[in-house]
Amino acid sequence: MQNNKVQIFDTTLRDGEQVPGCKLDTQQKLIIAERLDVLGVDIIEAGFPISSPGDFTSVNEIAKLVKNATVCGLTRAVKKDIEVAAEALRDAVKPRIHTGIGTSESHIKFKFNSTQEDVIERAKQAVSYAKNFVDDVEFYAEDAGRTDNAFLAKVCEEVIKSGATVLNIPDTTGYCLPEEYGAKIKYLKDHVKGIEDVIISCHCHNDLGLATANSIAGAINGARQIECTINGIGERAGNTALEEVVMILKQHPYLNLQTDINTKLLYDTSLMVREKMGMPVQPNKAIVGANAFAHSSGIHQDGVIKNRETYEIIDPADVGVNQSAIVLTARSGRAALAYRAKKIGYELTKIQLDAAYKAFLQFADKQKEVIDEDIHKIMKQINKISKIAIA
Amino acid sequence: MQNNKVQIFDTTLRDGEQVPGCKLDTQQKLIIAERLDVLGVDIIEAGFPISSPGDFTSVNEIAKLVKNATVCGLTRAVKKDIEVAAEALRDAVKPRIHTGIGTSESHIKFKFNSTQEDVIERAKQAVSYAKNFVDDVEFYAEDAGRTDNAFLAKVCEEVIKSGATVLNIPDTTGYCLPEEYGAKIKYLKDHVKGIEDVIISCHCHNDLGLATANSIAGAINGARQIECTINGIGERAGNTALEEVVMILKQHPYLNLQTDINTKLLYDTSLMVREKMGMPVQPNKAIVGANAFAHSSGIHQDGVIKNRETYEIIDPADVGVNQSAIVLTARSGRAALAYRAKKIGYELTKIQLDAAYKAFLQFADKQKEVIDEDIHKIMKQINKISKIAIA
Repeated sequence: MQNNKVQIFDTTLRDGEQVPGCKLDTQQKLIIAERLDVLGVDIIEAGFPISSPGDFTSVNEIAKLVKNATVCGLTRAVKKDIEVAAEALRDAVKPRIHTGIGTSESHIKFKFNSTQEDVIERAKQAVSYAKNFVDDVEFYAEDAGRTDNAFLAKVCEEVIKSGATVLNIPDTTGYCLPEEYGAKIKYLKDHVKGIEDVIISCHCHNDLGLATANSIAGAINGARQIECTINGIGERAGNTALEEVVMILKQHPYLNLQTDINTKLLYDTSLMVREKMGMPVQPNKAIVGANAFAHSSGIHQDGVIKNRETYEIIDPADVGVNQSAIVLTARSGRAALAYRAKKIGYELTKIQLDAAYKAFLQFADKQKEVIDEDIHKIMKQINKISKIAIA
Repeated sequence: MQNNKVQIFDTTLRDGEQVPGCKLDTQQKLIIAERLDVLGVDIIEAGFPISSPGDFTSVNEIAKLVKNATVCGLTRAVKKDIEVAAEALRDAVKPRIHTGIGTSESHIKFKFNSTQEDVIERAKQAVSYAKNFVDDVEFYAEDAGRTDNAFLAKVCEEVIKSGATVLNIPDTTGYCLPEEYGAKIKYLKDHVKGIEDVIISCHCHNDLGLATANSIAGAINGARQIECTINGIGERAGNTALEEVVMILKQHPYLNLQTDINTKLLYDTSLMVREKMGMPVQPNKAIVGANAFAHSSGIHQDGVIKNRETYEIIDPADVGVNQSAIVLTARSGRAALAYRAKKIGYELTKIQLDAAYKAFLQFADKQKEVIDEDIHKIMKQINKISKIAIA
């Protein structure tokens, strides 16, 4: 594996789907899985096979369908879970079992009523058992974000010995700050024997709005897999948004980290997921929101009309969006009005523009957006008053 | 000013409102401004007075209404803008003029077709002119995120000499990574003469999903004002979300940075803004999304039922949300079913729960969510089959 390739592990169909209202049937999951494969994700986490018969079937069908990506199934550190996942994945070209256990004090004490020694033992057994079925075993240390680094390193070292190929370090509660999460990954790189032979994975939650920043901090500090979902969907405030981490790496070439995602498919994939899951994306969502490339203030519009890069760092075409929108509102300036008027056939002199802009502001103060039809009205109006013939 | 207090500069009514579809009339703005004042924001940016007569009126009325917060009006580095803003703010208890100019190569070259020297001159003149009207003058170096640090420091030093009280360092295009933005603030702290007498402000955009992380990186490195909006609304992918930065500082006391926000009002304020602006918030939005405290997976539900802190870092009551929701879906486990059943009156034995869970999964695989009515049906069904009397 190249050292600068960051694998994209998509969990839209597992961590994303376990959201109130997002449940998909097998047919819908197959359509999304196929699209994720075309998008270029490296791993598709298809489900949690033991959780329900429907989920088993979905993972099984996705395993049969997907040709390029690794197909992964989630389990707890429980034999039966692992057996059922292996069975669901039996037809996958590249199967992966994702098993693990909580490692934070809170999880060990309140969830398992157990001890650190017992948790390590269960972790090792789960990984060893999964290795009987597949070569590729990913281990998750649940709530790693709140797990003491020294203990976490110990767990990691032990599961590597048991055959884990990927170590997932989840910030399960979305608590970490980027510096802290990055330092955690660096600590593992520096202290875990055998870590150079496995891939470290970031799995971050967005409870404080930091999932994307934490994942990038992880990658900068040595992680080479990011777990994420389309539109950042997922339980509570969701997971890391795939489109955000992919575009951050693309827009910051000096980081020297690449993904294999075909970014031109990002917007269409986002639309597919929101439609199938009935999960809306807010207009101000980064990269894929309806307004992500819409400019309405006069200062910004003026800049964008002169040179797109004044206010836009991403070419909308790079993520599959047709073009940046110039939306006319009371905050728009003369340049935007002239630009839009020209687009619909009015070439204005300075005097004409001044008159039109005055009329425009009256329209704009009364309504949220001024559309082309309003511009035609404005032109008629100033034609009458000023007797200036406007084509 | 205490050194560990981070001022919250709310720009919902200015940068937030300049969004396609978000335009408010004066009456609506007054309602929101009053709420922001009660919420405890330090500065309310009320509008851009020269942009339209309607906006002038709004700023003017807000200036009359607000009793605690500073009221701020935006201007370009243009005399007329500043005069109009001063006029709009004349009745404010604590007025602030926010003026500035683009400082990046892209802005100087493409937007102004100008030179660095000329831009510094215009910046100084704008600040000096504003000081004729108010004591509190904030200067923004537009596109500071892409401005060379040495030139940025020079601009800052000059406007401090001219009387600026706050230096706003905007990442206008949302391009910076947290490390980079934090380092920029640190550079200014270390290199600008007189910087100890002014407040550095973070104004970040969310084009790559990093606005919140960048603002926090700025504060960690010495900024003491964060510019943000309710729900993170704003042009394109929006601004830093007020609720996110406030809760990050609250949840990480070791940072020793405080705000004066009454967090218990966050959720209600979010609802007010989305309703007045007609701007939806996605369910997986951090802190204020409908799902922010909703648990649906079995593993998580089990943990939360045993101890809320297993999966939740924020007590929902702290942001004004009534309680964490346990939503039943095909990904829910026995513990969640038993918990919900108990809430509506069914105390189940282990055998009863096993039977109920089997029936539950059949319901859950067919629908997105299992509601209380379904649970009553399930109980009737297993009553018939198993002849177990369930209260």
